[in-house]
Amino acid sequence: MTRGFYIGRFQPYHNGHQTVIGRVAKAVDEMVIGVGSAQLSHELGNPFTAGERVLMITRSLASLGRPFYVIPIEDIQRNALWVSHVRSMTPPFDCVFSGNPLVARLFAESGTTVHCPAMYERQTYSGTAIRRLMLAGQPWEHLVPPAVIEIIREIDGVGRLRRIAEND
Amino acid sequence: MTRGFYIGRFQPYHNGHQTVIGRVAKAVDEMVIGVGSAQLSHELGNPFTAGERVLMITRSLASLGRPFYVIPIEDIQRNALWVSHVRSMTPPFDCVFSGNPLVARLFAESGTTVHCPAMYERQTYSGTAIRRLMLAGQPWEHLVPPAVIEIIREIDGVGRLRRIAEND
Amino acid sequence: MTRGFYIGRFQPYHNGHQTVIGRVAKAVDEMVIGVGSAQLSHELGNPFTAGERVLMITRSLASLGRPFYVIPIEDIQRNALWVSHVRSMTPPFDCVFSGNPLVARLFAESGTTVHCPAMYERQTYSGTAIRRLMLAGQPWEHLVPPAVIEIIREIDGVGRLRRIAEND
Amino acid sequence: MTRGFYIGRFQPYHNGHQTVIGRVAKAVDEMVIGVGSAQLSHELGNPFTAGERVLMITRSLASLGRPFYVIPIEDIQRNALWVSHVRSMTPPFDCVFSGNPLVARLFAESGTTVHCPAMYERQTYSGTAIRRLMLAGQPWEHLVPPAVIEIIREIDGVGRLRRIAEND
Amino acid sequence: MTRGFYIGRFQPYHNGHQTVIGRVAKAVDEMVIGVGSAQLSHELGNPFTAGERVLMITRSLASLGRPFYVIPIEDIQRNALWVSHVRSMTPPFDCVFSGNPLVARLFAESGTTVHCPAMYERQTYSGTAIRRLMLAGQPWEHLVPPAVIEIIREIDGVGRLRRIAEND
Amino acid sequence: MTRGFYIGRFQPYHNGHQTVIGRVAKAVDEMVIGVGSAQLSHELGNPFTAGERVLMITRSLASLGRPFYVIPIEDIQRNALWVSHVRSMTPPFDCVFSGNPLVARLFAESGTTVHCPAMYERQTYSGTAIRRLMLAGQPWEHLVPPAVIEIIREIDGVGRLRRIAEND
Repeated sequence: MTRGFYIGRFQPYHNGHQTVIGRVAKAVDEMVIGVGSAQLSHELGNPFTAGERVLMITRSLASLGRPFYVIPIEDIQRNALWVSHVRSMTPPFDCVFSGNPLVARLFAESGTTVHCPAMYERQTYSGTAIRRLMLAGQPWEHLVPPAVIEIIREIDGVGRLRRIAEND
Repeated sequence: MTRGFYIGRFQPYHNGHQTVIGRVAKAVDEMVIGVGSAQLSHELGNPFTAGERVLMITRSLASLGRPFYVIPIEDIQRNALWVSHVRSMTPPFDCVFSGNPLVARLFAESGTTVHCPAMYERQTYSGTAIRRLMLAGQPWEHLVPPAVIEIIREIDGVGRLRRIAEND
Repeated sequence: MTRGFYIGRFQPYHNGHQTVIGRVAKAVDEMVIGVGSAQLSHELGNPFTAGERVLMITRSLASLGRPFYVIPIEDIQRNALWVSHVRSMTPPFDCVFSGNPLVARLFAESGTTVHCPAMYERQTYSGTAIRRLMLAGQPWEHLVPPAVIEIIREIDGVGRLRRIAEND
Repeated sequence: MTRGFYIGRFQPYHNGHQTVIGRVAKAVDEMVIGVGSAQLSHELGNPFTAGERVLMITRSLASLGRPFYVIPIEDIQRNALWVSHVRSMTPPFDCVFSGNPLVARLFAESGTTVHCPAMYERQTYSGTAIRRLMLAGQPWEHLVPPAVIEIIREIDGVGRLRRIAEND
Repeated sequence: MTRGFYIGRFQPYHNGHQTVIGRVAKAVDEMVIGVGSAQLSHELGNPFTAGERVLMITRSLASLGRPFYVIPIEDIQRNALWVSHVRSMTPPFDCVFSGNPLVARLFAESGTTVHCPAMYERQTYSGTAIRRLMLAGQPWEHLVPPAVIEIIREIDGVGRLRRIAEND
Repeated sequence: MTRGFYIGRFQPYHNGHQTVIGRVAKAVDEMVIGVGSAQLSHELGNPFTAGERVLMITRSLASLGRPFYVIPIEDIQRNALWVSHVRSMTPPFDCVFSGNPLVARLFAESGTTVHCPAMYERQTYSGTAIRRLMLAGQPWEHLVPPAVIEIIREIDGVGRLRRIAEND
């Protein structure tokens, strides 16, 4: 039995995440998905709470065909302890899928195998781009899974983002 | 759609938890399960990491018949902020099931409905009792779901507990 | 112009505090009152929030005849930094009134003058004794200033304490 | 009896704050004033300690005609917990006066009424502008209440700011 | 080149520590000595600051005949991260000398070789016993290296301990 | 006996540090060297752990001719407490050598004598410049003591820095 780890901030969870996780999940029996910067919310770059992001991911992955675990991971501001922190909060995993050089380096220094998955149309499917569309009042719904649209509507996520953006 | 919240330390997850969650889950559409004192492990009273406990719970509830979310909740040592802390880390929930008077009071002061579920043979199915059996080298396996036995064996949980217990 | 400092946990503020502060205030022009362990509340030994305690003190000292400042002081768990922590949160003061040997020692090591005021009927006027009476359903109101009675009633302080006490 | 809440960083407290608080205080019986980022001091943007700021505010509001409470509020870096944090440190309040969109949003999500008071000549009366004048050796005293001038002189506040500004 | 690690609280550093470190140092080229619970001081069980303890150890080991590093290690209250925390603060080491079962277990789980050195007359040479003698006004000086006597006298360590002990 | 204090981040320790410490050490009997931002590592601006930096400094100062103490100092994000924090972690010192205006101001406000040593060819011998050379694949070895070259090679410090730099 092998278990793989993938981490993101998921602000919000979008089709790029969905595509990459769908692909890498095929290489393992189970997936562990870390929701990074879990303590942040109600910020321009981090509008959604960890719980809202857990909900987006879990709903969107309902048909992944693999057991998966979605775990909030708070920042600890100490890179040298970060791998131990992640491992203490998650079921044991055998390998990491990450295109982030710092995540890759930290896991590599700890002796974990790291794979770098191909990104999926990174310019289009990006949290930053989606939040910018939301602020501009332009369509963003085609960039995220249907469950994410629904959750963001229920919590008035776009209203929250716009209100926060008035902060000068 | 209604969602219910249940929290425990699950050191380890046992048949008492399994029975109570099985019962209360019938009253809601989805369950959120908080793994309390998530930051603690490798202590006499808290031998297992949050990740190990997430694994025990998720495996044991595979046939719950309800979607569920298992979320590590770190202590914050500030009771007045605890409800907000829990809510920021979890999908929104409508009611709480808890027999713990402090948990009940804190949620009640915040305006959340709290139900007190009947405990299930509390003397027998207790984390303290199970850890004591482990230390004494007596059988404990009949008190936990099969998945928990397996996980504790894989991580040498009993060995870890006994080693720590040598601390005077 | 001289300013004096007095610190307590004030769980709750009672006639013993009121008497001692009334006395020591005569020796200075202004008083600074620190509300210690400000982060704690909803515990058997610390039922009230810092804000509730600020309110009790401010109301009760309305006729002190001296300007005063009531400042919540969170614990920092590092004795060697505690004096700097207190000083950063409070208006500058010239001397400390405290019967607590640790407080006295820490300020003395930092070069601050410390006076040890006589306690006022310590067995009777004690937070521990008052909380015990509240739990036992016995009269406690004669031990605190009138404003404190009123505030505890408004926030159902006795109910909160009793509920928490059910925690085994 | 109604109580209102107003929060600022007050680096330093100036005539803009004084004017707005004077106006909004008329709508309530008592005011609670939060001193934000209480843990910061000795920085270019935050030169004064919380205690120094408490002193500036309390002295300047002596003739407000309303009881008021001045409470240091440390940052907690978790927006979702911030309202609970503020409420735990302050006497209970009924409404919030704030022109800050994030503060407004966080209180609104928690169900608190938020009023947006008109700012008072915001370009002139601004902490940033005043600190800039101090650094440039230009007159700033006309922008703050008399008590603030006195306190800044006593603590050599301008000297502190200039010394820190030498940091490259 | 091999480096060994030894950790203690050293409240105070005594002849038992001195003897054990002297012995185990023979097995390695260099020693790293961690000063545990570095953040604690001015407590009955932890009277001395980390800096005072660093001084005691460094002075006492002047003739060890091996290069050594004395490093304060603050507690982090998360056992699963403790090994990474220690390793981030210390020069790389190859093995650990510890009679503490928790320390041994945590390093063993991380893949580090742990040796359990024989204690040296543990009842006599113990921090607890020495602090008790200090409080009782009985001789303790024969239990610690000469440099430690001198340092404790300079900082009035016995006076500090006695003052704190008055706390009831 | 006099002891002096010098603090830096030492990312990495270079000939500029070595020269300045060599000079100022002549004015005192012993040196205490604080390794600032000890908790940071694996960042573009802070690639090395505190332990790696302790090793660089200790090795490089072997022939200083003065006893010295190398102490990791974690940031505490509260300037008003920083001097107490440093003092709790270090052997007592009589004076500070620092060209950093904030360090100088904080120690001066606490009553400590501060000397501002002349920097040594600051443009050439700078951590920022050295890290830039490492990233560019250009020679940097002539800017640091021989022991530092060796340590950076052993931990593949340049590889670590380059990997982290890929983070966009």
